[in-house]
Amino acid sequence: MGSAPDQLGWLKLVLAPDLGPGTLDGLDIRPDDYPALPDWPERDLERTGLPRKFIRSIKQPDAARLDAALQWLDHPSHHLVSRNDEYYPPLLRRIPDAPLALFVNGNPEWFLRPQIAIVGSRNATPGGLAIAREFSEDLSRAGLVITSGLALGVDGVAHRAAMDAGGITLAVGGTGPDQVYPARHRDLARRIVDNGAVISSFAPGVGPRAGHFPARNRIISGMSTGVLVVEAGIRSGSLITARLAGEQGREVFAVPGSIRNPMARGCHRLIRQGARLVESPDEIVDDLRPLIAELAGELRGLLAPRASTPSADANADAAAIDSGAPDPQVEALLAAVGYDPTSVDEIMARTELTTQAVSSMLLNLELQGRVAALGGGRYSRTGNDRESNCRETKRGKRTE
Amino acid sequence: MGSAPDQLGWLKLVLAPDLGPGTLDGLDIRPDDYPALPDWPERDLERTGLPRKFIRSIKQPDAARLDAALQWLDHPSHHLVSRNDEYYPPLLRRIPDAPLALFVNGNPEWFLRPQIAIVGSRNATPGGLAIAREFSEDLSRAGLVITSGLALGVDGVAHRAAMDAGGITLAVGGTGPDQVYPARHRDLARRIVDNGAVISSFAPGVGPRAGHFPARNRIISGMSTGVLVVEAGIRSGSLITARLAGEQGREVFAVPGSIRNPMARGCHRLIRQGARLVESPDEIVDDLRPLIAELAGELRGLLAPRASTPSADANADAAAIDSGAPDPQVEALLAAVGYDPTSVDEIMARTELTTQAVSSMLLNLELQGRVAALGGGRYSRTGNDRESNCRETKRGKRTE
Repeated sequence: MGSAPDQLGWLKLVLAPDLGPGTLDGLDIRPDDYPALPDWPERDLERTGLPRKFIRSIKQPDAARLDAALQWLDHPSHHLVSRNDEYYPPLLRRIPDAPLALFVNGNPEWFLRPQIAIVGSRNATPGGLAIAREFSEDLSRAGLVITSGLALGVDGVAHRAAMDAGGITLAVGGTGPDQVYPARHRDLARRIVDNGAVISSFAPGVGPRAGHFPARNRIISGMSTGVLVVEAGIRSGSLITARLAGEQGREVFAVPGSIRNPMARGCHRLIRQGARLVESPDEIVDDLRPLIAELAGELRGLLAPRASTPSADANADAAAIDSGAPDPQVEALLAAVGYDPTSVDEIMARTELTTQAVSSMLLNLELQGRVAALGGGRYSRTGNDRESNCRETKRGKRTE
Repeated sequence: MGSAPDQLGWLKLVLAPDLGPGTLDGLDIRPDDYPALPDWPERDLERTGLPRKFIRSIKQPDAARLDAALQWLDHPSHHLVSRNDEYYPPLLRRIPDAPLALFVNGNPEWFLRPQIAIVGSRNATPGGLAIAREFSEDLSRAGLVITSGLALGVDGVAHRAAMDAGGITLAVGGTGPDQVYPARHRDLARRIVDNGAVISSFAPGVGPRAGHFPARNRIISGMSTGVLVVEAGIRSGSLITARLAGEQGREVFAVPGSIRNPMARGCHRLIRQGARLVESPDEIVDDLRPLIAELAGELRGLLAPRASTPSADANADAAAIDSGAPDPQVEALLAAVGYDPTSVDEIMARTELTTQAVSSMLLNLELQGRVAALGGGRYSRTGNDRESNCRETKRGKRTE
């Protein structure tokens, strides 16, 4: 994830107290130059307008904290992913004040996959947890990465269910990457490292502080194509995540509940404020299709197969994108789609596959550029649908 | 309810097969002339453009049906309320194709009070029925008349709860007024006659037919300031009532429920289509305030005390409008409101009354023109607040 000197430069920026991304982004500095800033002569830094206290702190970083960070990074699954890195979460990059760099324990290549955040109360009801589990499993099987905040309650269930369904999950923590909060989720975090990644914008050594959670929530919503709130009391932090998602232009989904259930109040408030009321995971997949297609177009060049991809634990659908061998079920589906606009119903009738299987396969084929979504729920083959063409596309050689 | 010859004229119009209000309203006939039409010379009728078959049917009505209707009307609590009648439901009058006349068993003076329709599934869950009961009681106590369709399930519970709370309820049936459908609700209908009215646009002798229920639903929503759907399956007739309410420009309210509850699906669909998600009756009262205030202004002249008002069974709040004696609690409330804009919270603090009592009394005082709603939940006395002035207002002598 970037060269060693770059990494050191980014670390010095990230460790500088109170130097938010907003400070640098407001100055006339080329983003490519950010990691070199700590090495610039003071005179040049002054000329950029960077306040003197920041110049001092990036040139004289806290040695102990820098050491701790470097030591943490000295592990095969630990990474610092900067905003200049190709694996930086593409949707997060779009938000104002996107974090300069993320500490990552796990595989940052998953950041390139479309994510849905599933969040909710730490005190969810058993019914709410069951709904979180079902939505996470289904959305995971539909090819989406499940992102959440590693908290007790809905977050934990969402992470677990994604992995139980053979999918990928990303956990954004509110502490440094060397700590797990809550401690009770230590085993869960370890499992997530092998099936996704645990992420933090805080440096090693930073403990849990209430003031850090809004920043964490902003990353959760910023990385994701949409945020689903399953159950939330009227004062739940999940409502903050949802508000941030709205401000970031992301879809907000909320599950309604009985008016007797205080944990449904937050969801009801969101629905009143314009969140999409959802009764089933399918509705979410349908709503997210345009943004996912846009992302797929943007990332086509990056979705090349890599030796390092941990496909052993990945779900079958997701792995299919990287696999070279033609899958007979996929070929049958492509044949059923054909070159004319074809509805999902027609595809289902022709293949005798379930809605879920068809949706999941179409999503992956769309990401591969082998089918195109035409609006109105109809699809057609793009002509990029032969394995050889597909490879060309993945290597970024197509110029369209 | 109109003079005897007028009544006969209206009956002949209502009994004419297929002569909907739309037919007459499209012609160049003064509404005042409608009841005289059956007595007009054929030549004059032809000149209005009324199709020949209708001329025949209004001049030669079915004698047996006319007799049955006259016989039904020969009872002190039975009335025919025509569109020209001062008691015709004022909001119903505004809708296109408003029924020419309504058969009423009970007291039509209640039509002048603001109504909220509470409707829902015949197969509601016990939880749904409990919610229907609570909302009906609370809205009733807040001074609203509860209108519904006399069906099993939510409708029946809404009617009953309104009366149990000492309120008024109106039942709109899909059969002639001489029949009760479902038969199981015969006792309920009898009780409603004494505490409101049972209403139908169908003539005596007309039995239950599926095709009649949309017309009934249109009256339910048309009479009401808003429609609350408590529980409804995806094919429930309540969704038709809600759609009609929307078309008629009325507020639609829906109670959300668990996504596991199939009876919540219809409500969720409505919310997605723009209905207001409600968790408590207060929200409904707040939302309806502007339309109620508008109605109150329109009807001020009609709300005079009358000997015939069945205040014995009426709820205390409602009866207060018609009572001449000053109520010390009302006087205390008026003093608390004062002549400056005053919030409900301030009024509550000054009077030590509950929200519900204050809301209910304010609604009635607004109807009497003694306080004015100023927006933002604030009120002030109008200056019409002395009993003598109020009397003037009621007699319609004020010229403002």
